[in-house]
Amino acid sequence: METSALLEKLHIIDRECRHLQRTVAVLQWDQECYLPENGVEERSEQLALLESLSHERFVSEETGRLLEELGSVTENPQGDEKLPPLERDFLKAMRRDYDKEKKLPLDFVAAVAKAEGLSQAAWVQARRNNDFAAFLPHLITMIDFARKRALYWGYEGRVYDGLLDIYEPGMDTKAIASVFGPLRERLSALLKKIASRPEPDLPFLKREYKAETQAQFSGELMKGLGFDLRRGRLDTSAHPFCTTLGSHDVRITTRFLPDNFLSSIFGTIHECGHAFYEMAFPAELRSSRLADGASMGIHESQSRLWENVIGRSRPFWERFFPVLKTHFPGELGAVEIADFYRGINLARPSLIRVEADEVSYSLHIILRFELEQGLFSGAIKPEDLPAIWREKMKESLGLEPETDTLGVLQDIHWSMGAFGYFPSYALGNLYGLQFFGRLRQELPDYEHALAQGNFAPIHSWLFENVHQWGRRLDPPELLKQVTGQNLSVEPFLEYIEEKYSRVYGI
Amino acid sequence: METSALLEKLHIIDRECRHLQRTVAVLQWDQECYLPENGVEERSEQLALLESLSHERFVSEETGRLLEELGSVTENPQGDEKLPPLERDFLKAMRRDYDKEKKLPLDFVAAVAKAEGLSQAAWVQARRNNDFAAFLPHLITMIDFARKRALYWGYEGRVYDGLLDIYEPGMDTKAIASVFGPLRERLSALLKKIASRPEPDLPFLKREYKAETQAQFSGELMKGLGFDLRRGRLDTSAHPFCTTLGSHDVRITTRFLPDNFLSSIFGTIHECGHAFYEMAFPAELRSSRLADGASMGIHESQSRLWENVIGRSRPFWERFFPVLKTHFPGELGAVEIADFYRGINLARPSLIRVEADEVSYSLHIILRFELEQGLFSGAIKPEDLPAIWREKMKESLGLEPETDTLGVLQDIHWSMGAFGYFPSYALGNLYGLQFFGRLRQELPDYEHALAQGNFAPIHSWLFENVHQWGRRLDPPELLKQVTGQNLSVEPFLEYIEEKYSRVYGI
Repeated sequence: METSALLEKLHIIDRECRHLQRTVAVLQWDQECYLPENGVEERSEQLALLESLSHERFVSEETGRLLEELGSVTENPQGDEKLPPLERDFLKAMRRDYDKEKKLPLDFVAAVAKAEGLSQAAWVQARRNNDFAAFLPHLITMIDFARKRALYWGYEGRVYDGLLDIYEPGMDTKAIASVFGPLRERLSALLKKIASRPEPDLPFLKREYKAETQAQFSGELMKGLGFDLRRGRLDTSAHPFCTTLGSHDVRITTRFLPDNFLSSIFGTIHECGHAFYEMAFPAELRSSRLADGASMGIHESQSRLWENVIGRSRPFWERFFPVLKTHFPGELGAVEIADFYRGINLARPSLIRVEADEVSYSLHIILRFELEQGLFSGAIKPEDLPAIWREKMKESLGLEPETDTLGVLQDIHWSMGAFGYFPSYALGNLYGLQFFGRLRQELPDYEHALAQGNFAPIHSWLFENVHQWGRRLDPPELLKQVTGQNLSVEPFLEYIEEKYSRVYGI
Repeated sequence: METSALLEKLHIIDRECRHLQRTVAVLQWDQECYLPENGVEERSEQLALLESLSHERFVSEETGRLLEELGSVTENPQGDEKLPPLERDFLKAMRRDYDKEKKLPLDFVAAVAKAEGLSQAAWVQARRNNDFAAFLPHLITMIDFARKRALYWGYEGRVYDGLLDIYEPGMDTKAIASVFGPLRERLSALLKKIASRPEPDLPFLKREYKAETQAQFSGELMKGLGFDLRRGRLDTSAHPFCTTLGSHDVRITTRFLPDNFLSSIFGTIHECGHAFYEMAFPAELRSSRLADGASMGIHESQSRLWENVIGRSRPFWERFFPVLKTHFPGELGAVEIADFYRGINLARPSLIRVEADEVSYSLHIILRFELEQGLFSGAIKPEDLPAIWREKMKESLGLEPETDTLGVLQDIHWSMGAFGYFPSYALGNLYGLQFFGRLRQELPDYEHALAQGNFAPIHSWLFENVHQWGRRLDPPELLKQVTGQNLSVEPFLEYIEEKYSRVYGI
């Protein structure tokens, strides 16, 4: 068969699998946002069936045969047989995914999908009722499945390395530990210095903000940032997320807490950062699985760049604070922008990761990284997690959660079996600031544009440098191409130390 | 293989197909309620793929072989081989569906699903822009597909008979025409008499009602009627509908028009009637495709019974009018219940089917029934529909729509290829009143319970007589079993003539 005909067949399989995966995303989005309580069990069965069908289609004999036939071509490329770069990258991604997924038995895939749905629902209840014991059996199942998955795939070194590799290709425990070490040291030192400074008195942070009005502002904020509502939407869920249900259907969620209005604002900006990445893949990528992030860490670099570096900057709020005031004239009318800026940049140890400030955030991640290592080395038993969590929180941030809801039950990830995902958040901070260094060099007018609410230059820069590549480059390749550097903690730590010394007058 | 093992395998296929069909329902529900504008095209591809997978799974060789092997058993049932009645009914339903679906080629199923998604989206736009020409090519495709489907299935008599049979098993043009004849005659005569009576002056009908407050009332109304929100929900869409996404996940939609608050109220009650049927199927049916309505007409008998016979009755509003007043004290505070009752039972020709009163409603259906016959006999060309619609509306109800949005573009059905569906609505009126006659005999306390908001006896009666049978009985069997009668227009016409003579003092 002609190379082009083989490729065409492979693209059809790829497209069907993506349709199935995006249908899975619709079912999951619906489960988080709208599914009636008693619908959970059957929804899990629906998800299990779709995951099985997608798996079956992808690892079919046909895929294997096509990859094999194309292999002999691409290993000896000559003349007309030489593939265009985009097809070569497509083939590489197909092959990588195929080699992984082929190793998982069908009944395993179905069992995992079904268990994940039930586990997630159990987590929602357990978190609501502060009942870790009710969630424990599900957690044990999730750990067991994750361990089995790593075994099927095979790994060098530790089980946990096999899991990290899903989210951050090429990363392992050792590489992550080597950046998390200096991160912990310098962030802890900074937090100590900050703790010695007086806490500013900002009464507006303690006021009640009507959920409905928050939602209106989030809507305006999205539009202001350049979110195209013909290609996506905002809904409400217990845990903010971004999901892609189609090339032109990228949805984000947030939550509107009356006693913490900053949560919805920065949740919205964070998820917009993810959405901008997903929405920006160029048309030639959209027809294949290359229309995806380079890794979870690179994805987080986008969301955290928007949320923190852009969203918690002074010029950003020169544009949006007046708008926010029109929504909350009573609560914010008399507040100075300087005080608002301080209020959104407080650095104080707190219990909840997603509400954490920029300084302590990575310490939340390092805690989870250590717990995950322990769970998979066997040093930590799942039933001991609540106690160990409390102990480590005390050690790392000097705080002890009074309930498991505020402790070990706060995050959705483990309920979905997403072990090894957390480090990506902290890596995202590092990637993000490395990218940002370059962006600042190339956009000298950056702060001015921000204050004008003109985000076009930022979108363009991110598109040119990051988004347009989709999954074509691995994180280290992308980083090198954009910045000329390897992974480094310095740009992030310099940014944090400079900003917070300024904010706290250290 | 043992009979039980064969049946078990057939149940697995059935369950997978239902999961796929319910996933399709999730995608469609999302499309009607939440899908971003630009997501439509890819959604159509997702739907097409799922419809194909469901079709492939159902008409697989395995299904055919299992049905054949079980056939030799059930045709010669003896001793242990004799099936329990529930399994016999399951097998009958499987066989009927298989014989139909087997005749449709896979590429036809996929093409139809894809075209339906696009057609529906085009209809939404065309209706919004009053642009029939933009919808026409889609309409032509839908008619063409419907004709082909009937050809694949084979039919006796006319193409249109083949389509009617999907929604109302055993019904054909002749049988429907024979009940629609007297229906038209006596309803037109009644409308004429009513037209000679003075129009009551009811200013509350012309007030504006805040959409948000309407939504709150609809929520309370649902709960009051006994809708279990752990097993379903209410959303907003352009066209009200009810859909089943799981045995414990039945969703309804309505619309909140500030200038027509009755629309959301009766839309909600109507869709609740459908939902109560879907939610009531007993556990032993829920494990198979028998958990479905006996036909579209029987389904409509439930929704229209709740909407009109119950929901437009005086005792019903003795319970709910005080509640409605608390939501709209300014608009309704001074309104007497007698005037409200008149206001919800006005019988005046109008342009929109879903807003039509009980008297003229069936005339809207008869108009569509005639147009559909013409479209499939070839007597009517699709491009002539707007003009013929106007002409027939004038003839039948004395009104001429000024726009196609208020005319031929008002209903979603044709955009989905659902030709032959409309008659079910009018048949539903007939079935409903036949059931109701029996219900009144067996529940002498009915009006008292209604005025108390005690719907339990009605739910029980409907469960015992109608719901518990699901798809096990065909409409004529069910009707005979409940009422001892065959299909008849008399109970409906007697009810209508009695009620409206009373309301209008004729």
